[in-house]
Amino acid sequence: MPPEPDLTDIIEAVHRDIAGEIGRGRVADYIPALARIDPNKFAIAIATVDGEAVEAGDADELFSIQSISKVFTLTLVLSRVGEALWSRLGREPSGSAFNSIVQLEQEKGRPRNPLINAGALVVADALIANRPPSVVIDEITRFVRLLAGDETAFIDEEVARSEAETGFRNASLANFLRAFGNLNHPVDDVLSTYFHQCALAMNVRQLARAGLFLANGGIDPASGEVVIPPERARRINAIMLTCGHYDASGDFAFRVGLPGKSGVGGGILAIAPRRASIAVWSPGLTENGNSLAGTLALEHLSRRTGWSVF
Amino acid sequence: MPPEPDLTDIIEAVHRDIAGEIGRGRVADYIPALARIDPNKFAIAIATVDGEAVEAGDADELFSIQSISKVFTLTLVLSRVGEALWSRLGREPSGSAFNSIVQLEQEKGRPRNPLINAGALVVADALIANRPPSVVIDEITRFVRLLAGDETAFIDEEVARSEAETGFRNASLANFLRAFGNLNHPVDDVLSTYFHQCALAMNVRQLARAGLFLANGGIDPASGEVVIPPERARRINAIMLTCGHYDASGDFAFRVGLPGKSGVGGGILAIAPRRASIAVWSPGLTENGNSLAGTLALEHLSRRTGWSVF
Amino acid sequence: MPPEPDLTDIIEAVHRDIAGEIGRGRVADYIPALARIDPNKFAIAIATVDGEAVEAGDADELFSIQSISKVFTLTLVLSRVGEALWSRLGREPSGSAFNSIVQLEQEKGRPRNPLINAGALVVADALIANRPPSVVIDEITRFVRLLAGDETAFIDEEVARSEAETGFRNASLANFLRAFGNLNHPVDDVLSTYFHQCALAMNVRQLARAGLFLANGGIDPASGEVVIPPERARRINAIMLTCGHYDASGDFAFRVGLPGKSGVGGGILAIAPRRASIAVWSPGLTENGNSLAGTLALEHLSRRTGWSVF
Amino acid sequence: MPPEPDLTDIIEAVHRDIAGEIGRGRVADYIPALARIDPNKFAIAIATVDGEAVEAGDADELFSIQSISKVFTLTLVLSRVGEALWSRLGREPSGSAFNSIVQLEQEKGRPRNPLINAGALVVADALIANRPPSVVIDEITRFVRLLAGDETAFIDEEVARSEAETGFRNASLANFLRAFGNLNHPVDDVLSTYFHQCALAMNVRQLARAGLFLANGGIDPASGEVVIPPERARRINAIMLTCGHYDASGDFAFRVGLPGKSGVGGGILAIAPRRASIAVWSPGLTENGNSLAGTLALEHLSRRTGWSVF
Repeated sequence: MPPEPDLTDIIEAVHRDIAGEIGRGRVADYIPALARIDPNKFAIAIATVDGEAVEAGDADELFSIQSISKVFTLTLVLSRVGEALWSRLGREPSGSAFNSIVQLEQEKGRPRNPLINAGALVVADALIANRPPSVVIDEITRFVRLLAGDETAFIDEEVARSEAETGFRNASLANFLRAFGNLNHPVDDVLSTYFHQCALAMNVRQLARAGLFLANGGIDPASGEVVIPPERARRINAIMLTCGHYDASGDFAFRVGLPGKSGVGGGILAIAPRRASIAVWSPGLTENGNSLAGTLALEHLSRRTGWSVF
Repeated sequence: MPPEPDLTDIIEAVHRDIAGEIGRGRVADYIPALARIDPNKFAIAIATVDGEAVEAGDADELFSIQSISKVFTLTLVLSRVGEALWSRLGREPSGSAFNSIVQLEQEKGRPRNPLINAGALVVADALIANRPPSVVIDEITRFVRLLAGDETAFIDEEVARSEAETGFRNASLANFLRAFGNLNHPVDDVLSTYFHQCALAMNVRQLARAGLFLANGGIDPASGEVVIPPERARRINAIMLTCGHYDASGDFAFRVGLPGKSGVGGGILAIAPRRASIAVWSPGLTENGNSLAGTLALEHLSRRTGWSVF
Repeated sequence: MPPEPDLTDIIEAVHRDIAGEIGRGRVADYIPALARIDPNKFAIAIATVDGEAVEAGDADELFSIQSISKVFTLTLVLSRVGEALWSRLGREPSGSAFNSIVQLEQEKGRPRNPLINAGALVVADALIANRPPSVVIDEITRFVRLLAGDETAFIDEEVARSEAETGFRNASLANFLRAFGNLNHPVDDVLSTYFHQCALAMNVRQLARAGLFLANGGIDPASGEVVIPPERARRINAIMLTCGHYDASGDFAFRVGLPGKSGVGGGILAIAPRRASIAVWSPGLTENGNSLAGTLALEHLSRRTGWSVF
Repeated sequence: MPPEPDLTDIIEAVHRDIAGEIGRGRVADYIPALARIDPNKFAIAIATVDGEAVEAGDADELFSIQSISKVFTLTLVLSRVGEALWSRLGREPSGSAFNSIVQLEQEKGRPRNPLINAGALVVADALIANRPPSVVIDEITRFVRLLAGDETAFIDEEVARSEAETGFRNASLANFLRAFGNLNHPVDDVLSTYFHQCALAMNVRQLARAGLFLANGGIDPASGEVVIPPERARRINAIMLTCGHYDASGDFAFRVGLPGKSGVGGGILAIAPRRASIAVWSPGLTENGNSLAGTLALEHLSRRTGWSVF
């Protein structure tokens, strides 16, 4: 086996590879707090299972992790309810062009997987477990901070409020799930939990660090703490690979070859099993809602490191 | 790293693990040649990149590989037309409950991926390249025999004929693709090619051997021949992982964690990158059309070997 | 032309024709107020353009008109906004098996017609016109009482409240419409208006009388007042015929041959243009949500009177 | 009741009303024989139940009646198999944007109604009744000539052949129906029958005359012959009204208010029950595939005559 290349060199090379693409794509504009982000921002960070941490670009800047939070709430809820979760939702790619309600109707209120909005609402509902939303939101925040090894990740209340004010589609999904009996708590509590988790603000350094347990068989390599059993880590990675990029999941697997989860804030968390956790951030999105330059950066990174799982 | 366990031990343990499941599920019965297969058949074979080959069960018995052939025709056609293929079809999971024409209509005749029937028909059409079907079918047969390192794989004409006689759904798909201008050759030529490739008969030993180039970066480890470039091997593996088990692809990734392709004959080809190629066969199918005991065997094998890509 | 048969004779014959069917079907049970209705109730009333009024069965009993109210709010809103309404919704049958959100997604938030729930929500929104829901609900009540020539029709607050408490599917539709920009007022105001209009309680005598303007070219024959222009009356009749019975509209046209609108309370309003308005009520529903005995009664009535428009 | 206006005056007024619209729309161009028709052609003919016959425009010119033939084959097959036909297909509007295969899949091979292509293929299959297609095609031709009271209607073999050569979508539908067991005869026989019936060439005078039995309770008023019972005539009219213009059926009912059936050749047959049968022809089509000027002419005619059924 050749010597591991120097990650700092690689990350800088990747940054150069894609420099011309940064600023392209369309910044999410459905809420003001996202719309005013500078499209030229770019950051990448890698945390390895061996304790190495490298970064490039705007790595100190906090951004809205949005749907990436679904990975953390899925992890939390599986610890709480175990595999029984799968009686309420599937783990199949959705194959729909966007965050669709069509499939939910055909499949009678059972979301296809936990990484689409409908599935994440069911996860939030299961996580609530008869507690007030504020307690649940606190739990999520504490969990993410613990994983990030850093107390500065926070929930941006302005973002959460804006999501709530404009989140008619998510409100529609939640009411639809409730109509099918697949929500147990009040629709408003589920939505509040969901809008707050999406409003988590982190930087790429924290995010890469927070995902590291998934690259390390469920164990946080820094603390040695078992976050989840190894098989569960593998399974979450499998779901990220098949479902993590909405209707571009197949393309992400084809091009990058790593489990990953994107958010409309422009972030992506990617996992190289047994190697590293990688976070990228660039706010310009493709039409599928995934970071354009972020995906390209991961494609280059995967090629330069040979970390593709395939 | 612990010493590699003995594969013969593992394969026998897997056989014992799932003994109670063999014979369950429903044998495909849409053509007589498949319907009369003994549901209690079971075979498994592993070929490693290091040249090891182990097997258990009915490993000498030839079975109809059916949709597994799509992996080989995809490989062939990519060598012929290159990445231009993707202008005619996608590489996203279909998310449909079965071999659906709905999606094809919504997406105007562009199949979601090459491993569903509609996509495989487009692949067959691209492979024909103005040649008579018999020449194309010969090419496919020779290619599979070469990969298998064995001349006994053959096309079962009875199966091919039965498929043609009852293949109204595939005829519907082919005409539909042609209506959208996504077939360039006569519908009957495309169907004939497709029905013949599905009628390929192989045993698990040959099949495991034939898939080995995908586990070895595109190079046949026995001959050293470059079948395809390494990046293409990774990409085919990615498509197998996200799309190889129809609407149970996510579940296969979740449980087994390996790229794989199933056929209604009860076979599955699975790839452990950098490790091995595995073929299983057990004719009883789940309602999704995948081998029930075969999938379980791969789940146990993956757990015992630690070969999951996640 | 033969002499007009005696309507009292006909109505009694119809009652006898279908006596064996009364009590069959399933009473709507999604809210307690509907679930406790005696399934053996049956009533029919005819009001002719010549001023005749006949009835049979439980013609004094008030029942929840539910979706039949959509005919009255459509009439009201067309008087308010005119043909501009059609920029926000269509007038095509939905062709969906039930009150589907699928079509709404495919057609980007533009409901197919004003007689499905999504369309009625848009109608309610247009009717609100920046007024408090209570004012709008008053206007609807007054309008229906005026048409019925009777002040006793009222909104059953218990029914309205129950609808609101369990109306997750309608809440989902309303949020969905809002997400597509096809609601201008707060979702809760639109839902409140809609749930109240559905809770209108009337008897068949009042309902038949209230629909009479549609049989008489838009003019109330009792008062001589022009409710709407004749062309608009024809058009509302056309929409009732093609869309008034959800996914059984074609079958109602085939069997009855009259414009009609059903409600899950078991009522149906049918219009025989230039002849009469007919109301029937029987709470047992078919699986399509239309009154089973009520539809049969109208089929017999149509045959005995020769009033089919075809 | 005012005196009946003079139909010759009306028809000429209608011709003037819409003169500016003739030539607009897009002539069907999927086969050469249709594509080369002069878009400025226009003809209208009325045949009344009282024996009056008026016409205007190019009333001698034969055109391809295409889907209008579905009305005649439906009439024929109902005489042959009776109401048992409805076990194989429905009578509900399709609600789909075009001649869709989606619905057919969701509804497991049971076409929504006999006036969409899938339904007409089932009708053709039922009509074949184990006879050679040529015999069936002869029967259809003789039936139409009999109804038209004229021997010159004929099947344009060039059109039939062109349809066959390009009819991949219909071939797809037929194979799909066969896959679901809803065709009993060879796909090619069904398609041949269907392509020939669509190639019937008639002029508006013949077509209006041929539809007259539907306006007259099933009796041909010229010969006094009972073509079908009165109830069946009403039912066919009902199906025409709810399903006769594909996904613009609701709009046609809204604007014209008459049962009607359109063809992509630019013809429309409309029935004014108890009054008249009307045929129009103008080759320019709307995006829904219905004659643009033809529909407008019927809208004006309906307004000027007061023949709307509503």
